[in-house]
Amino acid sequence: MPTPVSKLDLKDARIAIDAAPCTALLEAIFCRLGFSAQTALAVARHLVDTSLCGIESHGVMRVLEYAAQVQNGVLTPAGETTVHRDDKGVLRVEGGGSLGIPTMIAAYDAGKEEAADRGISALSIREVGHTGRHGAFAETAADNGYLMICLGGGNRKIWRQVAPHGGAKGMLPTNPWCVGLPGGDRGPVVMDFATSMIAGGWIYAARSAGADLPAGCVIDKHGQPTQSPEAYFDGGAILPAGAQKGYAMALVAEIIGEAMLGPSTTECNWLLITLRTDLFRAPGAMQAAAEELLDELRNCPPAPGHDRVEIPGERERAHRAASAGVLAIPARTWGQITDLARKLGIEPPPTGERTLS
Amino acid sequence: MPTPVSKLDLKDARIAIDAAPCTALLEAIFCRLGFSAQTALAVARHLVDTSLCGIESHGVMRVLEYAAQVQNGVLTPAGETTVHRDDKGVLRVEGGGSLGIPTMIAAYDAGKEEAADRGISALSIREVGHTGRHGAFAETAADNGYLMICLGGGNRKIWRQVAPHGGAKGMLPTNPWCVGLPGGDRGPVVMDFATSMIAGGWIYAARSAGADLPAGCVIDKHGQPTQSPEAYFDGGAILPAGAQKGYAMALVAEIIGEAMLGPSTTECNWLLITLRTDLFRAPGAMQAAAEELLDELRNCPPAPGHDRVEIPGERERAHRAASAGVLAIPARTWGQITDLARKLGIEPPPTGERTLS
Repeated sequence: MPTPVSKLDLKDARIAIDAAPCTALLEAIFCRLGFSAQTALAVARHLVDTSLCGIESHGVMRVLEYAAQVQNGVLTPAGETTVHRDDKGVLRVEGGGSLGIPTMIAAYDAGKEEAADRGISALSIREVGHTGRHGAFAETAADNGYLMICLGGGNRKIWRQVAPHGGAKGMLPTNPWCVGLPGGDRGPVVMDFATSMIAGGWIYAARSAGADLPAGCVIDKHGQPTQSPEAYFDGGAILPAGAQKGYAMALVAEIIGEAMLGPSTTECNWLLITLRTDLFRAPGAMQAAAEELLDELRNCPPAPGHDRVEIPGERERAHRAASAGVLAIPARTWGQITDLARKLGIEPPPTGERTLS
Repeated sequence: MPTPVSKLDLKDARIAIDAAPCTALLEAIFCRLGFSAQTALAVARHLVDTSLCGIESHGVMRVLEYAAQVQNGVLTPAGETTVHRDDKGVLRVEGGGSLGIPTMIAAYDAGKEEAADRGISALSIREVGHTGRHGAFAETAADNGYLMICLGGGNRKIWRQVAPHGGAKGMLPTNPWCVGLPGGDRGPVVMDFATSMIAGGWIYAARSAGADLPAGCVIDKHGQPTQSPEAYFDGGAILPAGAQKGYAMALVAEIIGEAMLGPSTTECNWLLITLRTDLFRAPGAMQAAAEELLDELRNCPPAPGHDRVEIPGERERAHRAASAGVLAIPARTWGQITDLARKLGIEPPPTGERTLS
């Protein structure tokens, strides 16, 4: 079992849980919360796969936040995904106020279909709750030969998470950018990151797990550096990644989500651009040139403190492969998930729990 | 006269020069180097405007590099820009191996024209030398209601400038990303940056001006931090912006430029995506929502050490307006430009030179 890729400085142990019963438990929770059977399964699978990939900020822990959002009325579990073309011919994908993970799957499919026909497509994704790990959708599309660019934001009045560069107060959401495209012999290259120093999910994960945050990422309500998730929730803010550069990316995404596509509802709005990569050059030539580049990078001499240079997207695939279908969940987080299940009248199935050191 | 926006720690004075005679001198130099009259004027105007905007890494100092590239055969001054549609219907813009500034102007025009018709367009830009300050092109297009995304790379075997995250050696070019879109009442928002801690141009500018580089941006050939431009040129590298995030952006751009659009020639290759922003919402509603956001940000309490929160794109416009058509050029750089002119048999015109403190 691999060491989980984690930014969390855990105070508690982790528990080993097989993917299948964990997926079944999440699916049952989502059904009990009022989501359709189809949504419940899609979201459960997505969260479990994300945990298997080592991205625990977006993994099974999220069921806690989603359940809270159903209970406080932010999410509409009965909402359904629709894809339609408006009178200007623009593709619009809407999630009906429900969880955005199945909506994203539908949007990526619609984008690929239109790009297959026209070369490039742009569509809007609106009325969605949390949209999961975007890298998962981009990876699948890139495997099919597409370059995907997905960015968005909006609803900053609810999500005042990130301070602008030069500012002392949270003003913007973490507004992530995701780009995936075909890579070399080992598969797609996927860039998928919050434009802030850390994704908001890490703060939830750290709070849930009783862990500290990495240094240099968050300020407290007085603008002073902190590593405490509680200080963040008490009026603090995340710093932008790369100073003015991450701030500019967050702002562009916020204008797109809130001003160009908005107003935003539920969580935020997304612009998805899909481009056929075989328009410009034969796929074989592209893959050979990409592999030459990626191979050079893998063989770059490492900097002090690093083992090697990684290729974005490969760590997640390697983690998934090495996990062999077994999740490593912070014990405290797993306790919260099973508590939630029991509150909903679901008895957690035997999971083969094993405590990891 | 405003204090120039500069990352250079100048050891020498600056000289004040009016834009008109400076443009005329650059135009004469480019003509003498073999560029067409049209290219010479477009490039001279672009470089002078860039200096007026305070971006001296991409300003008039670049004439020195361009002249060297003509003399060593990297640039083909007689090359002409062509725009054509290939048999798959894809727009291809090529620069004939000459300077890419007029090619970029033509590409942005072609992108807007196709997007006006189809909603969105994607085109490739190839066979170009340096393409200037991308923010200038994006600002003009955004003023006309378009969202522009331009990124690219390639030719890393010549431009081993940037170390990958976790690596100790320069492997990639600085592969910039530019996104511009309509903003609020004060005009477009423009994000235009190298994916490295600093653009390569700053290193040329620092060497030309005899200045040190900012701390934390560059490593020497042993992987150790340095502020010396000479240490960079002696086998050093620039660090990626935002660690793994800037590295991922540089890598995506390199795959696009070299593998998807490539192979690259002259400098590198670019993908330009143009989207009509009025497809999704009426322009007035977009502008009002953007202005509300931008106004909030301008009024964010500043962080310690900062005067205020800036809006990307506004600093350049403010600098241009405040410059009142007068450039402030490091004396040493100006001396190099006039030396170049005299070597080419051009007597620099009277410029109204005034030494600034």
